[in-house]
This record gives sequence, structure tokens and C-alpha cells, in this order.
Amino acid sequence: MANDAGYSVTTLGAALRRWVQRSNLRFLIHAVVAYTWAMNTIDIIAKKRDGLSLGPDEIDFFVQGYARGEIPDYQAAAWCMAVLLRGMSAEETTDLTLSMARSGQMLDLSDVAPLVADKHSTGGVGDKVTLALGPVVAAAGQPVGKMSGRGLGFSGGTIDKLESIPGWSPALSLDDFKRQLRRIGLVIAGQTADLAPADGKLYALRDVTGTVPSLPLIASSVMSKKLAAGANVILLDVKVGEGAFMRTLEEAEALAEIMVAIGTLAGRRVAARVTDMSQPLGLAVGNALEVKEAIATLREEGPPDFTALILEEAALLLHLCGCYPSEALAHDAAQRVLADGSALEKLRQFVSAQGGDPAAIDAPAARLPQAPVVFSLPSPRSGWLSAVNARTFGETVVQLGGGRLKKGDQIDFGVGAVLRAKIGDHVEAGQTLCEIHARTPAEAQKAAERLLTGYAWADAPVQPPPLVKRTIYQQGS
Amino acid sequence: MANDAGYSVTTLGAALRRWVQRSNLRFLIHAVVAYTWAMNTIDIIAKKRDGLSLGPDEIDFFVQGYARGEIPDYQAAAWCMAVLLRGMSAEETTDLTLSMARSGQMLDLSDVAPLVADKHSTGGVGDKVTLALGPVVAAAGQPVGKMSGRGLGFSGGTIDKLESIPGWSPALSLDDFKRQLRRIGLVIAGQTADLAPADGKLYALRDVTGTVPSLPLIASSVMSKKLAAGANVILLDVKVGEGAFMRTLEEAEALAEIMVAIGTLAGRRVAARVTDMSQPLGLAVGNALEVKEAIATLREEGPPDFTALILEEAALLLHLCGCYPSEALAHDAAQRVLADGSALEKLRQFVSAQGGDPAAIDAPAARLPQAPVVFSLPSPRSGWLSAVNARTFGETVVQLGGGRLKKGDQIDFGVGAVLRAKIGDHVEAGQTLCEIHARTPAEAQKAAERLLTGYAWADAPVQPPPLVKRTIYQQGS
Repeated sequence: MANDAGYSVTTLGAALRRWVQRSNLRFLIHAVVAYTWAMNTIDIIAKKRDGLSLGPDEIDFFVQGYARGEIPDYQAAAWCMAVLLRGMSAEETTDLTLSMARSGQMLDLSDVAPLVADKHSTGGVGDKVTLALGPVVAAAGQPVGKMSGRGLGFSGGTIDKLESIPGWSPALSLDDFKRQLRRIGLVIAGQTADLAPADGKLYALRDVTGTVPSLPLIASSVMSKKLAAGANVILLDVKVGEGAFMRTLEEAEALAEIMVAIGTLAGRRVAARVTDMSQPLGLAVGNALEVKEAIATLREEGPPDFTALILEEAALLLHLCGCYPSEALAHDAAQRVLADGSALEKLRQFVSAQGGDPAAIDAPAARLPQAPVVFSLPSPRSGWLSAVNARTFGETVVQLGGGRLKKGDQIDFGVGAVLRAKIGDHVEAGQTLCEIHARTPAEAQKAAERLLTGYAWADAPVQPPPLVKRTIYQQGS
Repeated sequence: MANDAGYSVTTLGAALRRWVQRSNLRFLIHAVVAYTWAMNTIDIIAKKRDGLSLGPDEIDFFVQGYARGEIPDYQAAAWCMAVLLRGMSAEETTDLTLSMARSGQMLDLSDVAPLVADKHSTGGVGDKVTLALGPVVAAAGQPVGKMSGRGLGFSGGTIDKLESIPGWSPALSLDDFKRQLRRIGLVIAGQTADLAPADGKLYALRDVTGTVPSLPLIASSVMSKKLAAGANVILLDVKVGEGAFMRTLEEAEALAEIMVAIGTLAGRRVAARVTDMSQPLGLAVGNALEVKEAIATLREEGPPDFTALILEEAALLLHLCGCYPSEALAHDAAQRVLADGSALEKLRQFVSAQGGDPAAIDAPAARLPQAPVVFSLPSPRSGWLSAVNARTFGETVVQLGGGRLKKGDQIDFGVGAVLRAKIGDHVEAGQTLCEIHARTPAEAQKAAERLLTGYAWADAPVQPPPLVKRTIYQQGS
């Protein structure tokens, strides 16, 4: 090809010319370093392109070089596409995760508590688990410290939900974070900029180069931030179904397994649950509506299936932390803190510590944002519900103003929907399928039309999908 | 993933903010266009990533957008890697070629001659075919107009070889190019910057992103420049073996076939030959040495196998152009212009027209550059030669100063090597394997050691590899 090929300007050529012009040794050294760098980067891309495994040094060279801006976007983009199409082993994915975690600050919370717990969801619709689980686990004696992000697209973010409580703020310094964790055992903060910056940079690049849907890249993105944030016991909730990023059980299980493997190899105690996201979790979808449901759950007035899930997850996490000798005893403890009101009291303390109005916890109907229009959507036919599409609900709530299509969009905390029937329930024609909370009747009407496209009815009884599909934890963790 | 994912700044977001600040409709339009653009680009990358075929509009959108700088390098890099790993159909490759050809000037030579011939080699070692073939074809009445590049790495470039003739220059304006083509029927010019600029930009990117070795990308790169350069009859010489870009016959045949298909679909008459590059072509390797061998061939004093190849290729090209009713008659004509000296006279006219010293053609030994040291490399053992590695020769000549490792390197025209034995020949221990032409005895010694690593001997007779492996042309072309 060479004799008709266009030339590319090599870094060496450019640097050498500068050196000749200035006769300065510093430039020669720079040129040699830059040349070696350029060569290695291409070799690493080519190795992955050809389906070979990358060693920890090669991965670290690439990640740190990219984080420092020494490897340009176009080389990282070609590498991401090669990783997406060629895959990565568990070892490579762990090396990638550790390297991205090390690209910024690595929080050390050992001066706060021997163990700090974190719970992370891959994102779903109506997923208010953290809001109820955090207070239960903290009230049962295990500190929970979590850094969280905002929602983008149809799946909401925990920070956004909490911000529907007047005054509550996620902006904490690292010192504030530790102080609150020590004092009340529960803190949820916005992610600081310096956690795994390599991941932040790589994620932004993947977003615009068609390289998001890669299992190793997704797993390392999630886990690098978790490892950097300092928690040593991590419960992962991998959502699967229409309203989740992972559409099939196989994909979700593979993601759960690789994330547990990474965390375990990195010396953390990690468990993962693959849970259903074919329909919304619980009944409420929308920021303030979900906070209300979480509060109701802590009052033992929540939906039975959601309450059962919270107790189960709390038991798993408490047992993982070694607080109780068995999951059954941990489950009893979780039930106790729910029954005696100490979990609700923990939520009050937590909200108050981060500037929120504790009265909102006691009178949510009066103190939390409420949309002006509530429209009860009647079922157009009788039958057993066979589909209540989570994605349709997520997208409709975004359309109502309760989510973001792009960074910086303002959120209306009051809007959303509350299910009155779920998969397996029998409904009569005219019976309410769900309540739509909207800003105007016109928006409620539009939402109603869209939501109906997510429903399906059967003429025979339908089995509701099990909530927990699989639990994965490494032996010895 | 969304709730913990880092945000990427969307073009829409940035543009919309600017619009809000300035309340200017132009910005809204810009934002909408930019947003549509960004979305389509990612969709096109994702489509190829998922192994789907791209339509002509999608390919053209991508190529023109990249050429204009509207699609950034990182998106093009991800796309190139997806093309490399997922492949492209003949239709897609043709669409890509045509789009890249259209990204710059498309030369129209129809006012010069009804048909203009071009011959292109994918690059090899000792490949001086153009130097001898051009004059033969032109002398037999068929105008030959070619734009060529410089060499990079172990395979030399035709322009570099011609520049060893004192005074000869490849710098011609388009008008000069046409005038010379009309007047003497033979012109070889350096490639102007505006031929297929999309290819130039994409090639430079592929060079640094590990995306060079992709059949559709290689084929479209070569053919886009050929189509833009205006020739309507094209003979392609695809080299295969150790000293070529394509190492296996299968790869070379696939490349030849796709290039013929592209050219034919684009309305050109195209034939391709897959030829051997396991050992150097002819005997001479090195710029002035190869010019000398080409001149000797036009004097009927060249190596018999190289002379036979030139006559065969001339016959094929002349027949393809329709100058002669059969390849046999075209072969006779080629032999005639060689025998009567008119091909040599054509070379003289051509060199002279481009500023070169015609006396160099008549007294090459005296007028062409000559290295000060000539070292006859003795064979360390007796036997039949079973390998004379073309790549080793190419790399050694670069090391001697006869080629470039990077753009802008100065070339020493005199250095190189002349084979005295080729594969299949029997040599005695101490008999000369080749002459090394070097600047110093030390460089000759180093070259000798390196060249010996490219030789192998057998104790039984060895069949020399056939020069032409396969000839491909489309029916009806």
C-alpha cells in the first residue's frame, strides 16, 4: 500500500523537527518518549483487535494515558470498539476496573467504621430500594455510605428522588461525608468529580461512539466508581427486562457475575441480585411519589411485595457485613427496626443531616411536591394483566417532566404515576389501571395514551414474574 | 446504567444554551442540525458494529461529514474498527470508494484522449514495472497518465525511483499533466493534494488507530484515488508474499477481486494480476539501481523473467484499452516497440518533458547516482536457493539509506542491492549471492549480515515460484 498511501504526521517527526529547530535535549527526550508511547498504544489496540488478551500493564498504560490526555480520543474510541466486538476476560475486566478506580481519588473509610456498606442498582423504573433499604440497614447497626448519580433517560436517579424533599442536598465534602457516616450511619452524596475520572472520560466517549453496550465496559464502569468510593461491602442489583439496560436474563446474569468477580478480586465483599424490571418496581414511578412509597414502606404501609424485597435485601446485606450469623437472624433484625419505627427515625435523621425538612417524612402528603392533576386511567377491557411495560412507564414519566432527556434538564418532582394493578392482577373494564400525576389535563391525556400502549391483557390467569431471578455471591466473601 | 453514569455534553445542550443566551434563530437551526447529525453518526457506527449493511446515503453522509471535519476523529476511528471487524459487502465498499473519490477533485481527461491508461501496484520490493511498462504501452500508441506516491517503509515508490534521474520532477500542474499526456502520451506526476482528500484523512487516522489491515478499507483507499485521477483503464498489480502487504494468496485474490469489482461498478475497465513478492522482482532493489534495470530492459538487456512480465502486462493493458483485437497481437506490438527502440525513446521524451537529463537514459552508469562501496556477498554454503526474502531486502535497503522510515526522510538514490541468484538457482559456497551498494564498508557489512538472514538453501532442486499467480477481470470490461 505504501507507494500510494497518504502520509500521517508521526509524533516523532514533529517532535524531531522541533528539536532540530531548537537544539534542545529536552525535546529529543520528549520525542523518544512520545514515539514509544505512540507505538505502544497502536500495539495495544491491534492486540485487542486481533482477539488477544491484554496484560495489566498494557491496560493500565492505556487507561492512565487516556485519563491524562496523552492518548487521544480517536485511539481510545478504536480500542473501545475492539473491546466491544472482541470481548474481555474476567481478569482483563478486573484490571480495567482497578486501573480506572486508581485514576482518581481512592476513598479510605476505615477510620469511620470497620465496614461500610453500599448498594447499587443498574437502573430501573420505580426503583426506590435505596430510599427504604438504607435506613433499615443503618438502623440495624450497619453504616451505609453511598455516592450516587442523577438520572438520565427513562431510569430515575436516587439523588433526584431525594431532592424532592424540601431542603435536602447531596453536596457534601469528603469530611462531611465521613462525619455524617460516623454520626448517624447513613449518607447518600452526589458523586465527587475526582472519583474514577478515567471512567467519566471513557463513558462520555463511549456515549458518542456507539460503544456503550459492552459487558466488560459496563461492568468496569460501575465497579470502578464503587471501588473508588470506599465501601467494602457492596450489594449489586442488576435489573433485567423491558425497563432495564439488560434485556435478557443471560446478559444480566453475565453482568452480575463479572461485577461480583471484579469486586471479589479487588478484595471487597460483593453480592449481586438479578431482579425483574419487566414492570415497574413497587407501585409508584416519579420522584416525590417514590419517596412517599418509601416512607410508607418504613411505616409498614407499603406494597407487600416491595416490603418483602426490602427485608430480603437488608438481610442479605447485613449478613454479608457479618452483623448477624445467619440471613434469617438478619431478616428478623430488619423486621424489628421496621416494626419499632427506628428505620423511619433513621430516615428522619438522615434527611435532616443533609438539610432536608424532617417534617416531610411525617407529613409527606402535605410537605412533598404534588402535581395539580391526578387522572385515574380506566382499563379499556377486562382480563388478567399480562404486561405493564416498565420502559413505557419510565418514558412517560420523563415526558410528564419527571426525568431528563439530557444533562441539565429541570425535573418536576411531583409528576409520575401510581399503579393500581400489576401483572397477574385481574381488572374489569373501567377499573383504574393507574393514577397519572400531571401538570395539566392535556399532559395527563397524552400520558394516558402512551401508558396504554404498555399494557396487555390475557383471558386466562397470568403468573406474575418473580421479583428476584438469581442471587450471586462468591464463595468465601 | 443511567443513574450512576457520567454525563456527556450533548451538542444539542451546548447549542441550545447558546441560543437561549442570544435568542437568535440561527442558533436554533444550528442546534437542530447538529443534533440530527450527532444522532445519525452514532446510528451509522452502531449499525456497522452490529454487522448490518450501510446504504450509500449513510456511507456518503459519514465520508463527506468526516472530510469536512463535521464528524470528529473519534467517531471515525470507532467506525473504522467496526468496519475492520465486521467487514463490508462489495456494494458497501464501492459506495465508500465513490464517496471518497467525490470528496475532492475528479479529474476528467476525456479532452486529452478517449481512453487513458493507469497501472497501480499495491507495493513490493524491486517493483520497477511502471518504469518499463509505461514507455512500452505509450510507444505502442496508448496514452498512460498516472499519479503516484512516495515510498514509506520497505516498499519503494515510483516517484522516488524516478527522482534518482538528475533534474526529473513529479511536480506538475493539472494543465501540465494534460499537455504532456497529449504531447508524448506518458506522464507520471506526484499526487495533488485534492485527490480524494477523505481518503488521505482516513488513511492517516487508520495509521494511528490499528485499523489499516482491513480489506474494504484498503481496496477503497487505492481505488478512490485511481477513480479521482481520471484514468478509465486500470491495471492493478496486487503483490503477495513476504515482501508485500498481503501475505496470503487468499487475501491478495480477495483484494484484487474487490478492486476489480469497484472499478467495474464505477464504469472503468479494470484488470488485476496477483503477482509473486516472495523474492524481489527482477534483480535490482534500490532507486537508481532499479532505474538502470528498467533502462536495460527497454534495451532488451534486462532480466528475461522481468522482460517477459513487462511484455505480458503491456499486452494485457493494450488489449484492455481496445488498441489491439487480441492479447497476442498486443504482445507482438509490445515486442516491436522494444526491439525498434521506440519504447526507450519514449522514456527519453518522458524524462526530458519532466525536466530530467535524457543523457542519463543513454549513459546510466555515468549519469545516475552510484554508491561508493560495492560488496559482493558470498554464499556461505552450496545448494539450491529456496528463499530470497523480499522483505529482508526491502528493509535492508531502507537501512542502507535507500528508503524512508517516516515522512520527510532523505533518500540516498545510489544505495541498494542487485541479486546474482534467485530462488531455484544453484549456488556454490563463495559464489556471489548479490551485490550490496552502500555508502560505507561498515554499512555494507551490516547489510550483508541482515540480508543473509533472508536466504535459505536446499539440498535438492527447488522450483522457482511462478511470477503471475492469477489474472482477474470482469466479464465485458
